[in-house]
Amino acid sequence: MLATMFHGAGDIRWESIPDPVIHEPTDAIVRVTASCVCGSDLWHYNGTVPHAGGPRTIGHECLGEVVEVGSEVRGVAIGDLVIVPFDHSDGTCVHCLAGQQQACVHLGFTVSGQSEYARVNQADGSLVRIGRVGETPDVDLIPSLLTLSDVFPTGWHAAASAGVFPGSTAVVVGDGAVGLCGVLAARTLGAERIIAMSRHEPRQALAREFGATDIVAERGDAAVAAVMELTGGIGADAVLECVGSTQSLETAFAVARPGARVGFVGVPNAVDAFPVRTAFGRNVGLAGGMAPVSKYLPELLPLVLERRVHPGRVFDYEVPISEAADAYRAMAERRAIKAFLRV
Amino acid sequence: MLATMFHGAGDIRWESIPDPVIHEPTDAIVRVTASCVCGSDLWHYNGTVPHAGGPRTIGHECLGEVVEVGSEVRGVAIGDLVIVPFDHSDGTCVHCLAGQQQACVHLGFTVSGQSEYARVNQADGSLVRIGRVGETPDVDLIPSLLTLSDVFPTGWHAAASAGVFPGSTAVVVGDGAVGLCGVLAARTLGAERIIAMSRHEPRQALAREFGATDIVAERGDAAVAAVMELTGGIGADAVLECVGSTQSLETAFAVARPGARVGFVGVPNAVDAFPVRTAFGRNVGLAGGMAPVSKYLPELLPLVLERRVHPGRVFDYEVPISEAADAYRAMAERRAIKAFLRV
Repeated sequence: MLATMFHGAGDIRWESIPDPVIHEPTDAIVRVTASCVCGSDLWHYNGTVPHAGGPRTIGHECLGEVVEVGSEVRGVAIGDLVIVPFDHSDGTCVHCLAGQQQACVHLGFTVSGQSEYARVNQADGSLVRIGRVGETPDVDLIPSLLTLSDVFPTGWHAAASAGVFPGSTAVVVGDGAVGLCGVLAARTLGAERIIAMSRHEPRQALAREFGATDIVAERGDAAVAAVMELTGGIGADAVLECVGSTQSLETAFAVARPGARVGFVGVPNAVDAFPVRTAFGRNVGLAGGMAPVSKYLPELLPLVLERRVHPGRVFDYEVPISEAADAYRAMAERRAIKAFLRV
Repeated sequence: MLATMFHGAGDIRWESIPDPVIHEPTDAIVRVTASCVCGSDLWHYNGTVPHAGGPRTIGHECLGEVVEVGSEVRGVAIGDLVIVPFDHSDGTCVHCLAGQQQACVHLGFTVSGQSEYARVNQADGSLVRIGRVGETPDVDLIPSLLTLSDVFPTGWHAAASAGVFPGSTAVVVGDGAVGLCGVLAARTLGAERIIAMSRHEPRQALAREFGATDIVAERGDAAVAAVMELTGGIGADAVLECVGSTQSLETAFAVARPGARVGFVGVPNAVDAFPVRTAFGRNVGLAGGMAPVSKYLPELLPLVLERRVHPGRVFDYEVPISEAADAYRAMAERRAIKAFLRV
């Protein structure tokens, strides 16, 4: 197949490699019909996460068509159109039953989501059927459906983990696609006031469209002061940390009101210090982490299909999948919020 | 008055200093009638927290008799016998009303709890009346009543923050007096299985008396393996972190099942790294911090008065308050779990 290959920092190529094959009887192979680039892919592209070993496939967000299934797969069939959660889970183990699919005892991941084909471990527990070949969903829904493989459930996980409740005040740290989906999630969960931290005009605009009531463009201490001013010195009821850096965690803990929780979903690749003393003194908690995508899809898919939310608005850049290298550049240079890869 | 004074690491003296006086109309002065040494005092005694400045009073756990009140104090009167929470709060601010008394806008602390007299800020919000002079509580209750000023509510806060529920499996990291009170709290909150980490026989025995069902004497990776073995590979529903070191936090996060919370109450003075990646990947949360003592006293005082719990069993060493230096040595050398200072 043709695949987007990661060769090292800044080096993305579209190349021919062997097709993925069924390894386990619970696997399925999906032909990718829509894909995109994740902010966490950029950690690799930027060299923040050191690269070891040779070239490898990349990408973990996709929609597709089931083209092959293992002998034990019962829930999906060849020809089904499916959402592919980035984290694959069996849906039946002790952790899955507790709503902790990200810790499934058979946990797997999409590893070639920006290629022609991707293998899915635990197809039955993971894939969510949205139609059959020939019953293509409305084209305008495809971007939002694609966000269900990772970015929207991840933003939702931040809001849910932070404990957003109806009437609450939420702060969203991070204006990437996850942070923007966090704004949308907080609004959908009933937050009355949503303070989005962003210094980029197009992102500020989308944050407002998604439900942000206030924008804080400052960073660091000035950002904390601005939130405290907006909240009458009390702090936020819930904080969504959607970056994964030392500074973003510090800001998140500092703007939370005592007893509140920071819901964190930014992969903590750039965290070299944790505000443990702030957490202790103020009793600000931490929750979240890698999102259990499958847990949320029964709730989020109808929201998308009924057009009650439009998380696909995070895509502001589009190229053919063969030109993913261009998409990476655009995102790394912050010319794009999130790039859609057309198949 | 005569006071226990901290002069620097390893240097505790009983000396004459000026009496504390009323500063604010909401203050009260308490004559200390029972006191003790806290594990967090040892951070100073051991030199873990650098000492700057000259000699100062020390001690934040005491019972006493109100001997003077400011002009605005209404809830207690001269002659009342009171429990003195180590953290003083007004009980009326936005944070107190949310059950976050440790973040009161008028937060104060007992700073001369190992002396003849102590000033209490926010007497009305803080002091809990247990009788009048002449109506001394039964002598056998005094140690348990004394624990209500800090160590028992702090252990309770660990259990409550960790989300212990009836039938749950809890792990307690730390076999100091707070950890042991955490065991007692977990049992009182209905945990069915309580795994206490301790390598010291007298502490193991008290942990069992307080409700521990299993003892893990290993540390580090071996301790994690032991808990995983005991929990069928799943991990604990709730983890109480009662130490405040890098290793104890790592252990706490590693033994928690996905989606569980670590309730932490050990002052994080020895934390130079935080297991943020474990927290992220396993979705293990953090909650707790400095305990809002006043929040818990309406629930805990009756338990003590009705003799349903005996947290005073943590005291296994007793000296006259004038010999506090001896008590510090005994605790620092781990010859004592917790030292009672007799007045």
